[in-house]
Amino acid sequence: METLKIGVAGLGRLGLIHAENIYNMKGIELTAISNLDEKINKKVKEKYKVPYTYTSYEDMLENPELDAVCIVTPSGFHTEHIRLALAKNLHIFCEKPIGLDVEDIKNTIKVIEKHDRIFHLGFMRRYDEDYLYAKELIDNGGIGDISLIRSYSIDPIQELDSFVNFAKKSPSGGLFLDMSVHDIDVIRWLTNSEISTVWATGNNKAAPELSEVNELDMGTVTMKLENNVTALLVAGRTASHGYHVETEIIGTKGMIRVAAAPEKNKVTVFNEHGTVRPSSQHFPERFARAYENEIKDFVRCIRENKSPEVTSLDGLRGTEVALACQKSFNENKLVDVKY
Amino acid sequence: METLKIGVAGLGRLGLIHAENIYNMKGIELTAISNLDEKINKKVKEKYKVPYTYTSYEDMLENPELDAVCIVTPSGFHTEHIRLALAKNLHIFCEKPIGLDVEDIKNTIKVIEKHDRIFHLGFMRRYDEDYLYAKELIDNGGIGDISLIRSYSIDPIQELDSFVNFAKKSPSGGLFLDMSVHDIDVIRWLTNSEISTVWATGNNKAAPELSEVNELDMGTVTMKLENNVTALLVAGRTASHGYHVETEIIGTKGMIRVAAAPEKNKVTVFNEHGTVRPSSQHFPERFARAYENEIKDFVRCIRENKSPEVTSLDGLRGTEVALACQKSFNENKLVDVKY
Amino acid sequence: METLKIGVAGLGRLGLIHAENIYNMKGIELTAISNLDEKINKKVKEKYKVPYTYTSYEDMLENPELDAVCIVTPSGFHTEHIRLALAKNLHIFCEKPIGLDVEDIKNTIKVIEKHDRIFHLGFMRRYDEDYLYAKELIDNGGIGDISLIRSYSIDPIQELDSFVNFAKKSPSGGLFLDMSVHDIDVIRWLTNSEISTVWATGNNKAAPELSEVNELDMGTVTMKLENNVTALLVAGRTASHGYHVETEIIGTKGMIRVAAAPEKNKVTVFNEHGTVRPSSQHFPERFARAYENEIKDFVRCIRENKSPEVTSLDGLRGTEVALACQKSFNENKLVDVKY
Amino acid sequence: METLKIGVAGLGRLGLIHAENIYNMKGIELTAISNLDEKINKKVKEKYKVPYTYTSYEDMLENPELDAVCIVTPSGFHTEHIRLALAKNLHIFCEKPIGLDVEDIKNTIKVIEKHDRIFHLGFMRRYDEDYLYAKELIDNGGIGDISLIRSYSIDPIQELDSFVNFAKKSPSGGLFLDMSVHDIDVIRWLTNSEISTVWATGNNKAAPELSEVNELDMGTVTMKLENNVTALLVAGRTASHGYHVETEIIGTKGMIRVAAAPEKNKVTVFNEHGTVRPSSQHFPERFARAYENEIKDFVRCIRENKSPEVTSLDGLRGTEVALACQKSFNENKLVDVKY
Repeated sequence: METLKIGVAGLGRLGLIHAENIYNMKGIELTAISNLDEKINKKVKEKYKVPYTYTSYEDMLENPELDAVCIVTPSGFHTEHIRLALAKNLHIFCEKPIGLDVEDIKNTIKVIEKHDRIFHLGFMRRYDEDYLYAKELIDNGGIGDISLIRSYSIDPIQELDSFVNFAKKSPSGGLFLDMSVHDIDVIRWLTNSEISTVWATGNNKAAPELSEVNELDMGTVTMKLENNVTALLVAGRTASHGYHVETEIIGTKGMIRVAAAPEKNKVTVFNEHGTVRPSSQHFPERFARAYENEIKDFVRCIRENKSPEVTSLDGLRGTEVALACQKSFNENKLVDVKY
Repeated sequence: METLKIGVAGLGRLGLIHAENIYNMKGIELTAISNLDEKINKKVKEKYKVPYTYTSYEDMLENPELDAVCIVTPSGFHTEHIRLALAKNLHIFCEKPIGLDVEDIKNTIKVIEKHDRIFHLGFMRRYDEDYLYAKELIDNGGIGDISLIRSYSIDPIQELDSFVNFAKKSPSGGLFLDMSVHDIDVIRWLTNSEISTVWATGNNKAAPELSEVNELDMGTVTMKLENNVTALLVAGRTASHGYHVETEIIGTKGMIRVAAAPEKNKVTVFNEHGTVRPSSQHFPERFARAYENEIKDFVRCIRENKSPEVTSLDGLRGTEVALACQKSFNENKLVDVKY
Repeated sequence: METLKIGVAGLGRLGLIHAENIYNMKGIELTAISNLDEKINKKVKEKYKVPYTYTSYEDMLENPELDAVCIVTPSGFHTEHIRLALAKNLHIFCEKPIGLDVEDIKNTIKVIEKHDRIFHLGFMRRYDEDYLYAKELIDNGGIGDISLIRSYSIDPIQELDSFVNFAKKSPSGGLFLDMSVHDIDVIRWLTNSEISTVWATGNNKAAPELSEVNELDMGTVTMKLENNVTALLVAGRTASHGYHVETEIIGTKGMIRVAAAPEKNKVTVFNEHGTVRPSSQHFPERFARAYENEIKDFVRCIRENKSPEVTSLDGLRGTEVALACQKSFNENKLVDVKY
Repeated sequence: METLKIGVAGLGRLGLIHAENIYNMKGIELTAISNLDEKINKKVKEKYKVPYTYTSYEDMLENPELDAVCIVTPSGFHTEHIRLALAKNLHIFCEKPIGLDVEDIKNTIKVIEKHDRIFHLGFMRRYDEDYLYAKELIDNGGIGDISLIRSYSIDPIQELDSFVNFAKKSPSGGLFLDMSVHDIDVIRWLTNSEISTVWATGNNKAAPELSEVNELDMGTVTMKLENNVTALLVAGRTASHGYHVETEIIGTKGMIRVAAAPEKNKVTVFNEHGTVRPSSQHFPERFARAYENEIKDFVRCIRENKSPEVTSLDGLRGTEVALACQKSFNENKLVDVKY
């Protein structure tokens, strides 16, 4: 088994997580990094003994040693970075979303399909043990047929300031494209159905400053699915208690909640506040193991030449639905999703 | 303090609860009952030492000893029964809803307003200690401003058969009018705001037989409020685990769940199923204490000549919103609530 | 059904609870109160419309209208007050313990047995719905045979100061006699077995000032029962989070926890502390309904001439075991309980 | 950084866990295994690409490539295997306990101290994130001074049969030496104090067949510590709901429970049983991550030439206390622990 050589593009918070996970994996080498900030590059190079560092993605792709790239650059660059990597015949792990524009994504998918390279998309919740447990229970008929699904993604208020700064500089695509894509993917994955109609609402009661950057601090989407399931989706940016990602599935024979409370661990503290369960504080903490599993699966797909479970079509669908949500919110009306 | 004499009209499950609570209260006499089924009347007469029994509501109203009536007859009779009782100058406790038709309710409210009698409407959740605790926390600023509210009312599947039989005989008004009025009232009460737009969805995956009687086993409503809060509402008839009434309030500084699980008591059982908290099985169990508090408050309002917190307008609003939900579901479109 | 007339002796915190419950019960009159503090008597007289008030217990017993007394005087007076009431042929509800001295209790039991009056002892946990649910589950074989039982009674630290003041004036009998008697009774009740050997330990780490009054802030007892069950018992006075009364029963086929957390209600708050369940703050809150049920049962026993479930022997056993615990702690050795 | 080469001795359930963790670690090679059963050796060799396999521990030690051994042989062999490995100048990771006989352990410790090799003892709970969170909270004063500590280790009943078979063949040392050593270590670790007096009780109500092999299915120990803390310890073999390892620490300013319920994951299921949290089923599941962290720490200690946190003295103390517990149970008396 030869060592697989991977380059990581983009060293934001999530890029650093992928870099560390790749570094720690047996049989894999974190061969290169590309990132604008040279200070960060230097630190990462030292910490993870990275042979090559670049400030340009294109330069990194010229490195003939690379077998694969892990794209964690800003969402707006994803489609181009995917196409460039495929032109070099590299396997690709790409963070969600594939892109922000539907036509651009469709064109990119055509390119992906022309190459027999592994394309793995970063919907890490599919690799989280809690979600996998729920999925298995559902698929085994444990709760009958699904009639309703509710999914929350609420970021901690501690991260609001940094988000506002970020949003001022580069548009995130909005709450639905930025955060709800994960919930949209979970809904499609758990129900095996597509979303047909959406109505989105929202407000900025906790963070009025978000209005200035055309963002929401609390958004909801109600969805009808093709199989007549209803889905309720909440996305937010101002949870006082931590990072609240929760999914509920109501079936005809039972009901499941994945992370009804965002439990940090198995510890309960009894103090002047009452009976307290501490919360997960952010996505790196909540999904630490899922990110590991995801990269392991990427490597397994390459080694065994297997198709990843998450396909580029899943990425396209997520973006299509999120854009329909945004349109529904903007125009305050029911919107039928076009595929 | 003279003994207050109350007559109970209607001895269905809820009528029996009110009868028992009235019987047990000091300073109150369960003076009369009116109900079609003489067998039940006989049992109740014996159990609670009721002086007078009637098979006709009108006959009961002729009893000059009565100070007040408790109307627990089928919803379709409420407005008429209210007007008849007022004509006899009686204080009234009336189960929700005031009525099924908006014009009829408006006319009845005019009659109510012409009499200086106590009119108390049965939104018992406002007397439940869990909801009161949440209300106080909210009003004291404990979670900042409300940005989202979610409320569930899901009946246990054990009661489905009896509901189907019931619905075949007399229309319930539909899931939204029958069940969601409680959630609608909770939403208005906790937010101090009115509902402006609704979208309702639903399906019958668990109980397809409900389609025949034009009912839903699972319905949702998404609502925009005048103060720009979003509300999500779920109503159902097929919970495997018991009687699931839950309300979540997301504020700018915290989040509250009232009965995140429908805990029957404080007991935890560890057995082959895992760590198990038993569930409340039905509304008489879940809201036993709330029904007691409600009647006590009715009596207190009479004795102290105080206005009840729940007004006839609250009843009207509940019905108006529920009818808008039904219309939205029927026509599958956004509906603006007309007041 | 004639009105039953009851006098309450002692208007400390628990006395006031009993007075209120008696006052609120249909068919019962709170006919008299006896208590040293005239100011409190005046207030109670007004609040509950009490016909007769006394500063002397003996004087109250002279009132010929009384059918029963509720003895809530300091523990040291119980046996005398029981005998005096029986001499007047009154039914008796007596707070735990029957007394502090075993010989004195035994003599009092002989007097009780000579009178055909109801004697009801205040082990209110037997009337708590959570404990009753556990008891029924156990008796129905839901967890097989009991192999271990653990029971906690920990008072909130908020009440420490008032306890220290109280303990300086009149000895409580110590942690085991004052608090653990409830756990001892629960253990005997749930296991249907007697305690044979005990070892008690303790310390004053949270409240060293208790050493001065010869008290403990944290005590434990390990017990062997005649049926070879082990029991673990913890009593304390300094819980930060509220009033923690918890009982665990480990059986051969399952395990039960009664109040694993001292949940105040069904509300969950998500805030900067995490996921928080508020706590019950003191015994009047935690056992409000149990105190009501207990007095109702007392009245039912009188009316139906039935023997109460809790007997004077249960009271004797509780004291005998608690004294053995105290002796074990004092001498730091295993002590066999003598009956 | 050179590759570290480790041999694993003993491929029972825990040996296989260590083998897998060693195999997966970057910079480490699972160079050799020694185990009696050749079939298992063959499987492990293939699965983890192990260069050398042996049926004799002594033979494996002759392999000059080895840097370290991981001893997971039956407890009775530990001291000998430790001494043999040290004679070859190897670093040692050894599963608990060091040994079953105090003198033998003391002699072995002398040998350990004569070698400057890393000796790492397998008390994996010290590497569990839940226990580490509690430890940090305690050390930061989050609950004040500890006054009581309670620790449970209860194996699932599913494993009873295999244990009975195992116990018939080779003595486990008894419930206290086999299971409670973990709790004893946790108590010493969290309190920074030694145990001075113990009283042990137990019974075989769930598994009377254990009496034949001189074992208990439920045992408890009450302990006094030198700093006057009380500790309560429960060990069992017949939990219906899974693998129940729980530790409670009561401090003067708060209380902590580590794993109050043995939650398998963050999923809650609502079904006909109520609100259900699934349980961890066995130690490999519950402590999967702790076992990984433990081996990582062993490697880190070797590379950085640092002393492990768990010392051979901790191992000695654990055995001394467990033997005192067994003696207390056998003779049914308080036993002072001799160090």
